[in-house]
Amino acid sequence: MEGVDHLAHERNKSEFDVDAMKIVWAGSPHAFVVSDRISKLVASDPGFRKDNRSTLSRKELFKNTLRKAAYAWKTIIDLHLSEEEAAKLRFYVDEPAFTDVHWGMFIPAIKGQGTEEQQQKWLPLAYKMQIIGCYAQTELGHGSNVQGLETTATFDPQTDEFIIHSPTLTSSKWWPGGLGKVATHAIAYALLIVGGREQGVHGFIVQLRSLEDHSPLPGMTVGDIGMKFGNGAYNAMDNGVLRFDHVRIPRNQMLMRVSQVTCEGKYKQSDVPRQLVYGAMLYVRQTIVADASCALSRAVCIATRYSAVRRQFGSQNGGPETQVIDYKTQQSRLFPLLASAYAFRFVGEWLKWLYADVTQRLQANDFSTLPEAHACTAGLKSLTTTATAVKQIVSPSSSSRWSPSEEESLPVEDKSLEERLDGIEECRKLCGGHGYLCSSGLPELFAVYVPACTYEGENTVLLLQVARFLMKTVSQLGSSKKPVGTIAYMTRVEHLMQCRCGVQRGFAELSADLVEAAVAHCQLLVVSKFIEKLQQEIPGKGVKQQLEVLCNIYALFLLHKHQGDFLSTGCITPKHAALANDELRSLYSQVRPNAIALVDAFNYTDHYLGSILGCYDGNVYPKLYEAAWKDPLNESVVPDGYHQYIRPLLKQEIRTARL
Amino acid sequence: MEGVDHLAHERNKSEFDVDAMKIVWAGSPHAFVVSDRISKLVASDPGFRKDNRSTLSRKELFKNTLRKAAYAWKTIIDLHLSEEEAAKLRFYVDEPAFTDVHWGMFIPAIKGQGTEEQQQKWLPLAYKMQIIGCYAQTELGHGSNVQGLETTATFDPQTDEFIIHSPTLTSSKWWPGGLGKVATHAIAYALLIVGGREQGVHGFIVQLRSLEDHSPLPGMTVGDIGMKFGNGAYNAMDNGVLRFDHVRIPRNQMLMRVSQVTCEGKYKQSDVPRQLVYGAMLYVRQTIVADASCALSRAVCIATRYSAVRRQFGSQNGGPETQVIDYKTQQSRLFPLLASAYAFRFVGEWLKWLYADVTQRLQANDFSTLPEAHACTAGLKSLTTTATAVKQIVSPSSSSRWSPSEEESLPVEDKSLEERLDGIEECRKLCGGHGYLCSSGLPELFAVYVPACTYEGENTVLLLQVARFLMKTVSQLGSSKKPVGTIAYMTRVEHLMQCRCGVQRGFAELSADLVEAAVAHCQLLVVSKFIEKLQQEIPGKGVKQQLEVLCNIYALFLLHKHQGDFLSTGCITPKHAALANDELRSLYSQVRPNAIALVDAFNYTDHYLGSILGCYDGNVYPKLYEAAWKDPLNESVVPDGYHQYIRPLLKQEIRTARL
Repeated sequence: MEGVDHLAHERNKSEFDVDAMKIVWAGSPHAFVVSDRISKLVASDPGFRKDNRSTLSRKELFKNTLRKAAYAWKTIIDLHLSEEEAAKLRFYVDEPAFTDVHWGMFIPAIKGQGTEEQQQKWLPLAYKMQIIGCYAQTELGHGSNVQGLETTATFDPQTDEFIIHSPTLTSSKWWPGGLGKVATHAIAYALLIVGGREQGVHGFIVQLRSLEDHSPLPGMTVGDIGMKFGNGAYNAMDNGVLRFDHVRIPRNQMLMRVSQVTCEGKYKQSDVPRQLVYGAMLYVRQTIVADASCALSRAVCIATRYSAVRRQFGSQNGGPETQVIDYKTQQSRLFPLLASAYAFRFVGEWLKWLYADVTQRLQANDFSTLPEAHACTAGLKSLTTTATAVKQIVSPSSSSRWSPSEEESLPVEDKSLEERLDGIEECRKLCGGHGYLCSSGLPELFAVYVPACTYEGENTVLLLQVARFLMKTVSQLGSSKKPVGTIAYMTRVEHLMQCRCGVQRGFAELSADLVEAAVAHCQLLVVSKFIEKLQQEIPGKGVKQQLEVLCNIYALFLLHKHQGDFLSTGCITPKHAALANDELRSLYSQVRPNAIALVDAFNYTDHYLGSILGCYDGNVYPKLYEAAWKDPLNESVVPDGYHQYIRPLLKQEIRTARL
Repeated sequence: MEGVDHLAHERNKSEFDVDAMKIVWAGSPHAFVVSDRISKLVASDPGFRKDNRSTLSRKELFKNTLRKAAYAWKTIIDLHLSEEEAAKLRFYVDEPAFTDVHWGMFIPAIKGQGTEEQQQKWLPLAYKMQIIGCYAQTELGHGSNVQGLETTATFDPQTDEFIIHSPTLTSSKWWPGGLGKVATHAIAYALLIVGGREQGVHGFIVQLRSLEDHSPLPGMTVGDIGMKFGNGAYNAMDNGVLRFDHVRIPRNQMLMRVSQVTCEGKYKQSDVPRQLVYGAMLYVRQTIVADASCALSRAVCIATRYSAVRRQFGSQNGGPETQVIDYKTQQSRLFPLLASAYAFRFVGEWLKWLYADVTQRLQANDFSTLPEAHACTAGLKSLTTTATAVKQIVSPSSSSRWSPSEEESLPVEDKSLEERLDGIEECRKLCGGHGYLCSSGLPELFAVYVPACTYEGENTVLLLQVARFLMKTVSQLGSSKKPVGTIAYMTRVEHLMQCRCGVQRGFAELSADLVEAAVAHCQLLVVSKFIEKLQQEIPGKGVKQQLEVLCNIYALFLLHKHQGDFLSTGCITPKHAALANDELRSLYSQVRPNAIALVDAFNYTDHYLGSILGCYDGNVYPKLYEAAWKDPLNESVVPDGYHQYIRPLLKQEIRTARL
């Protein structure tokens, strides 16, 4: 059994060059080499083992996460890893930890919002992990609405200090990762009060714990907020609660790149263009889009491989049953997700290019493409994370993810979003009953990646920003300003806009429809970037052909899914809809022989996948069987509790038992 | 804060008699009294505490479940509870346990499939819990397809015994609840072999463990299959694995009500009408429909109350922010679920009546309504569990749930099903970020109730049975046999069937469409039974009016959701669709002031709900804050692991640290 590849017959069927596809997926030969090397390094080191996570108690799990974080840091130092490699290592360790927030939020916030002086003071400490930071924004009673935060920072000119205070229970900081037990410092957001006047919410660097013995500093009540959804998953993270009781910090610990408070108690704006802040935001959001394709592809890889292993019904003359992946209904659920994983990958790649382009322009004081770039990244971040339910991992070299754009004040949540692909959970269902076992990897993947849609609660806010951008574009259609780039298609709807304008209602009332329009715009983006990708040279036998099939599946699946909209607006006829469905079925048949190779191209190690159902060699059942015996309950044949609770039942002695 | 009702202003708004609605919900004054008494009894007894479940390790959790099961049995005996009350008590204890399977599957299987003699021998032992049973059907490599099971039962006429054997690894029994650590006996399903001939799959009573010391009997390899999705949840259950190595059992332990093996080795059918077996199946399925409305209503109760407590955005002049429940987009997601909970409740009530009616007829040898009753229960079981993702709790007095109808050989899974309401998870999302905390109760509710859709993997099989019934009805439309009852409406489509019959494809190829037709038929049932309910006398001020609003929401929401189908078939015009949407919005406004009272009518205790977000008094934030400190991580201020793993980071001593 050792070494036999039970999926070899599937791999032999494939009609394209898998190694070439691996490079397409990775983005470049260099990116492939780095990912391949680091993922194998992590996978082969028992110090990064993660298959036991679901059986650990909260304390054991958390302590083990502390150990892994330290071990990862030691590995990075010992092997002299580059920043790119270190980021990849943390990625492949694949465990939520305080380090995510330190590198992904604390450091970027200082880089984005701190002055040169502040950066020089704090960044070297943070880069060496001599301090560990967290990002304390949300409060018990306040999530997305940053302007509603209750924590106050009152300037005291007498001592040249700010007094940070939690005036109510609901103003307690709540949720920040790393805050509960680890972080020594926080970027805390608070309503600035200077000379009795409120000046909006600003960020402050606040030391939380002693650097000598780790005890909380005076005036801080701090702890963990308790268990979260899932086995392992975010329970490895110490999401925290924090109440300030008149905590004093020096004036120079307010992040003052954009606004300042002088020692005389004057509040003023700096001359730093606010737009630079948006540039940083774009970076963060484009990395989130890239991460969405990672998470989705992982779930798709597991579901695809297990669908080839699993057999159900259809046995003929005592022969083996039919592979589940051969059922049309399985294909019609699985292959659109496979296509989505690729589609998100390529649109993420394009966003990365867009970010680089905008950055160059910003440096030359050209802000002209910023609104379009902002709309693209905001919309795609929302679309892809919703479709995947993705965790928002932020890469270490990224900049801030605090969002000054939170001024958007409509907490509209979008029904249509929820109806869309819920990729990971759908993959779990596609694995049948065994997807419910932790050893399938899917429950933890789901639990880890699901928060993004509610956690920061802003996906719809982002879509409304896209909608505003679209409305503005439409309103300018008559003028000399012609829409270009991703909104060039709007010139074609110009006449339509003139024909029908019976709408009498306001933006807020129509918000649900506007969100749908924004989603449609973003979907158009995803499809067109996939098509553009196919217009490039793509080396490797059969690689381009496979991608063409996936692109067509993605587009036709959307058409099918939204056929109600297309039909009711007269864009297609019922006949068209039926033809599109026929074509979709035929495309599924073309994907079928290549399905395993298409997920092999992700190049995920068994360690990273963390799923017996998705293991590379397809030897699922012996591995499931073997894994079962490792459960703590199997440590003894007769379970603890037999003598007290089972035997008295069987022996009819329950009335006198001590329970 | 103690005793203050933070939702009093909401309760004062309601326009109907909540106490009268409680009786409507419960089904009768008697049912209300029993539920009310038993749920309060459980809630007030610290022995049934469940708020600590998510922090327990697997072994602690399991041992505590053993204790509760024993304690529940002691309570039942001490208080001389009736069978109805005992069932309610187990229901309100609200923890998956081996007793579910003992009462819900083991005993019913013996009642349904055992001979009189077998029932007399085994049932008294089981009723007193002198033996504890499980239901060992599924295997590691075989789920829904019962006819594909590999375990064999070979008759040995020499010793008058069956030899039960697992010939392969994939034939290991896998998943049965109670098997892993507790059950002393199993109903094991195996392929019967008599005189060298295979005679299909049958059930056998097999003793697993010694009644003296609980050790597995010779030839049994038995254990737990390991951790499952979620915190607490089904990890309280010892789902098990079992391999037989030529285990011998007496011939009279084959369940022989329908088929027998004689001591001479003859296989024969008894003269018991097979239809009686179907009658038992109907009972089980109708209880599952009733349970779906329980699970969904529980999630809806939590989401509705917290939507009234939670405020986001919309603050005017420094006043409080807007209650989330006042946002139209929140209403458009929440209120259809509220309407569904009521709709499922009433259709469940009707199914109960249908079962009683069919039972009477069967006893008079009238099998005429059986096909229709079978189609109704099968379809509604599938529909409501999919919409809720409900756990299949089976009531103690029910009969067997092994399904002789598993001969259906199409493992079609239905995409359209997955797109439907996924009630519990949707409610979790409606609670924003805090729904991700275990103390919200929603993660565990989701994890407990989600298996039904994949666990037994047969919802689509059931729908295909419904589709076959519909096709048969259609094929008879021209004949003298007129459709009556729930299919009476078909006479109206007669002419349509004659106009269009261009379909050339077979049943299997069109299975996805047939499943959709079956779902539509079932939805029609739900709506029409809701309407019929409203044609009855319903006492209580405003009660009927509220139910009318909910009924209209349910129907129009379906129309909206499936408008693609209605539009493409020309049943409605885009104008109709728009009007329906306007009406839906107006209905949401009518529900709004009554929303809290409509969930109060479920009469759930805070113990049963198990959710801080859903607590009756709405005092959510102080309770969340207080609960956080109970997490094991908060036992010490400085976390375990600080000295080994955090301090070396901060002090730059990582290279020499022992990790």
